[in-house]
Amino acid sequence: MHNPQLNKHGELQHLLSIDGLSRELVVKILDTATGFVGVSDRDVKKVPLLRGKSVFNLFFENSTRTRTTFEIAATRLSADIINLNINASSTSKGESLLDTIDNLAAMHADIFVVRHAQSGAPYLIARHVDRMHGPHVHVINAGDGRHAHPTQGLLDMLTIRHFKRDFTGLTVAIVGDILHSRVARSDIHALNILGVPEVRVIGPRTLMPGGLADMGVRIFHDMEAGLKNVDVVIMLRLQSERMNGALLPSAQEFFKNYGLTPEKLAHARPDAIVMHPGPMNRGVEIDSSVADGAQSVILPQVTFGIAVRMAVMSLLAGASA
Amino acid sequence: MHNPQLNKHGELQHLLSIDGLSRELVVKILDTATGFVGVSDRDVKKVPLLRGKSVFNLFFENSTRTRTTFEIAATRLSADIINLNINASSTSKGESLLDTIDNLAAMHADIFVVRHAQSGAPYLIARHVDRMHGPHVHVINAGDGRHAHPTQGLLDMLTIRHFKRDFTGLTVAIVGDILHSRVARSDIHALNILGVPEVRVIGPRTLMPGGLADMGVRIFHDMEAGLKNVDVVIMLRLQSERMNGALLPSAQEFFKNYGLTPEKLAHARPDAIVMHPGPMNRGVEIDSSVADGAQSVILPQVTFGIAVRMAVMSLLAGASA
Amino acid sequence: MHNPQLNKHGELQHLLSIDGLSRELVVKILDTATGFVGVSDRDVKKVPLLRGKSVFNLFFENSTRTRTTFEIAATRLSADIINLNINASSTSKGESLLDTIDNLAAMHADIFVVRHAQSGAPYLIARHVDRMHGPHVHVINAGDGRHAHPTQGLLDMLTIRHFKRDFTGLTVAIVGDILHSRVARSDIHALNILGVPEVRVIGPRTLMPGGLADMGVRIFHDMEAGLKNVDVVIMLRLQSERMNGALLPSAQEFFKNYGLTPEKLAHARPDAIVMHPGPMNRGVEIDSSVADGAQSVILPQVTFGIAVRMAVMSLLAGASA
Repeated sequence: MHNPQLNKHGELQHLLSIDGLSRELVVKILDTATGFVGVSDRDVKKVPLLRGKSVFNLFFENSTRTRTTFEIAATRLSADIINLNINASSTSKGESLLDTIDNLAAMHADIFVVRHAQSGAPYLIARHVDRMHGPHVHVINAGDGRHAHPTQGLLDMLTIRHFKRDFTGLTVAIVGDILHSRVARSDIHALNILGVPEVRVIGPRTLMPGGLADMGVRIFHDMEAGLKNVDVVIMLRLQSERMNGALLPSAQEFFKNYGLTPEKLAHARPDAIVMHPGPMNRGVEIDSSVADGAQSVILPQVTFGIAVRMAVMSLLAGASA
Repeated sequence: MHNPQLNKHGELQHLLSIDGLSRELVVKILDTATGFVGVSDRDVKKVPLLRGKSVFNLFFENSTRTRTTFEIAATRLSADIINLNINASSTSKGESLLDTIDNLAAMHADIFVVRHAQSGAPYLIARHVDRMHGPHVHVINAGDGRHAHPTQGLLDMLTIRHFKRDFTGLTVAIVGDILHSRVARSDIHALNILGVPEVRVIGPRTLMPGGLADMGVRIFHDMEAGLKNVDVVIMLRLQSERMNGALLPSAQEFFKNYGLTPEKLAHARPDAIVMHPGPMNRGVEIDSSVADGAQSVILPQVTFGIAVRMAVMSLLAGASA
Repeated sequence: MHNPQLNKHGELQHLLSIDGLSRELVVKILDTATGFVGVSDRDVKKVPLLRGKSVFNLFFENSTRTRTTFEIAATRLSADIINLNINASSTSKGESLLDTIDNLAAMHADIFVVRHAQSGAPYLIARHVDRMHGPHVHVINAGDGRHAHPTQGLLDMLTIRHFKRDFTGLTVAIVGDILHSRVARSDIHALNILGVPEVRVIGPRTLMPGGLADMGVRIFHDMEAGLKNVDVVIMLRLQSERMNGALLPSAQEFFKNYGLTPEKLAHARPDAIVMHPGPMNRGVEIDSSVADGAQSVILPQVTFGIAVRMAVMSLLAGASA
């Protein structure tokens, strides 16, 4: 099957999902990102790689945090960025999604960063721009429904590589609401591609999707057993709209069983790192003493997130320019 | 009567309406825009003409699409642009429109791009800045009530000139809700100024304003007769809030009589072009097969819109700088 | 007590309040601002002092006007600025204020401009970034509750200095709702620091806070007596939500007693200047003939506000870079 993310030379044309990327390409993105980490530390936090390029942040689902990271990444590459609040825009006037895309492409957009509540929306857009507007227009999936959040997966890998160096000896646990998490999906694909020998998921039965076994993960419902000797703990955000719903008894009950406390973390390796994609619900999925503790790498994740987004944008639009 | 758009040397001081502009000035704007078309095709889509200038997008009426085109045009001229969501701002604190303008002018604004639901609001602002703040402050009407939308009119002319070369042999039809359309008014003025010998308007009696005959147009209520042998078809957007209202039986009924289908379009010249200001209501005023068909120049209109807005801004603020 | 605004060398680390600043430092800010006044008059309104710096406008309380002045000031210093509408953001997802700050700091923010309805919020943020993120991150208070609005106080001083040259012979009156006004507090501190011998406050008993006498001001409830021979009149904005409330009979009644009319202004010195922080309620706290009259310096205040904000940002982030 043709991979819609790659052009005919096998280069990255869009970033839609980590699933289907080669190990070589993932490593290339991480290596490029490593080169950008230093830019944000400089006195002048800017490189001219995307000067004069137009990046459109199309957020059909609100996310100030993720939108801001793409805005900063684009700005530090010297691109021009335009934020579109799509709810308040033409779609409310009855214009179709693809008409909106066509219009922005006709304004010579270079990159669309797309966040959408519906799984697959960025694929639809990528297929359409390939057919209608040609290879100079690129799509980055900034989170689609429960499906994928590839830049989050990549920044998680950059974080793990920074602190653990080598993937091939690691045990990684992903904890919480696996069912609704696009972060979990993207992380599992990335960990598999990079050769992590043991990926575990930990959570209640009601928050586990079907088909997990096919993804090469080990499933745990008991958190202490699941955390035993892991090198990396990735906590997931519990969506507040799901707390106290049918799938969960209460936030308190969830915290008791699956909230990361110092006691539970003691089952992991002493040098295990703790990650979280944010925003955190302190006292629900993670205890504050862990979130702010010595093993937490939650803020470095944010820093690496800027570098990863700069890397993806520059690989997409810097070369093809 | 003094033309409030021109300074004492007859140069463009504000762009408020196409009505009252000389043929020479309209052609100058189109020629300048033609020179900017290439900028958006470049690797680095930027020229430094308005570097350090401050452009304020004052949208008292929401329009993501038009606001975005001005934002892109200003950015590609290297201006600094600030978007003001006026509903959420000081006017809600009881500050008057002109106090808001005075404040922004005191921050050394160079260009105000104004969209307002009330006809004449940009004139009020232009008169006020002329009196209070002097010739270095410019106003561009980005659509006022039912009155005028001059940059849309100009981009329509640039599109027609691109595809038809010469205006003096053309028959142009404007179709739909003429009554409420500032686009129709601006197009009719521009077509007259540029010497188009036959301008037709097509639509139901209930959607025709009085005084059309004085504007030098031929009125048709039958679409097939009106499209006979035309070179250019300009479809208007039917505002959804007007569908199913007192003036119209239903969207379906409107489409049956005035929606542009391949069958109706067959009455025009074989090389006729089809235009639409967007956003389109597919299946209401235009059939998808026409919107996406070989005669459609709807996306080139969008591209030319960026060039026209760059031309207007550079003529206003580039020279006087 | 340690002053949280200063670093160990006594230099400005944050701008949280005028209270506690030395005369020398206030004069340094005003002198720096004077140097920036000319930038906004230039053809290219830009200096490269903050190129590549990231400024975050964190407005937890809506204020388009103040937010815009900081955005323009940052832009004219060539900084990159990101506006965060905090109500629509992560705090609505249950993330804590300090988690939001940590995240933005991890994206290598240089300056946070903070407006918050709660007095003290910018102090909380400044203390946190000092402890967690180090000396390269700076906080500017853009108004916190009833407490302080230091850049407004500084721009008022720059305006007075421009028109009156010397502070040491002046009588200054501040008129209106002193109780709820952070502008009044910041102005009183600044006027005291700069050696103004007589600062008066004028208003109804119900709108006077306790402890005013300790601030070295003279209190008047009769406006004509209070304005007698003053050199500067600073009118305060009456918050509409306070009109017709328990503390005030009505806007009409307020205007009768404390609205600045030409008749009341006649009691001041003939060369007295009239100031207002905006947005004005014409006909409530100030008559239009005074607001637009020869003694009004309300629009110059706006112009000086850009220069003061450029000065503060460049002193904070330009040097430490």
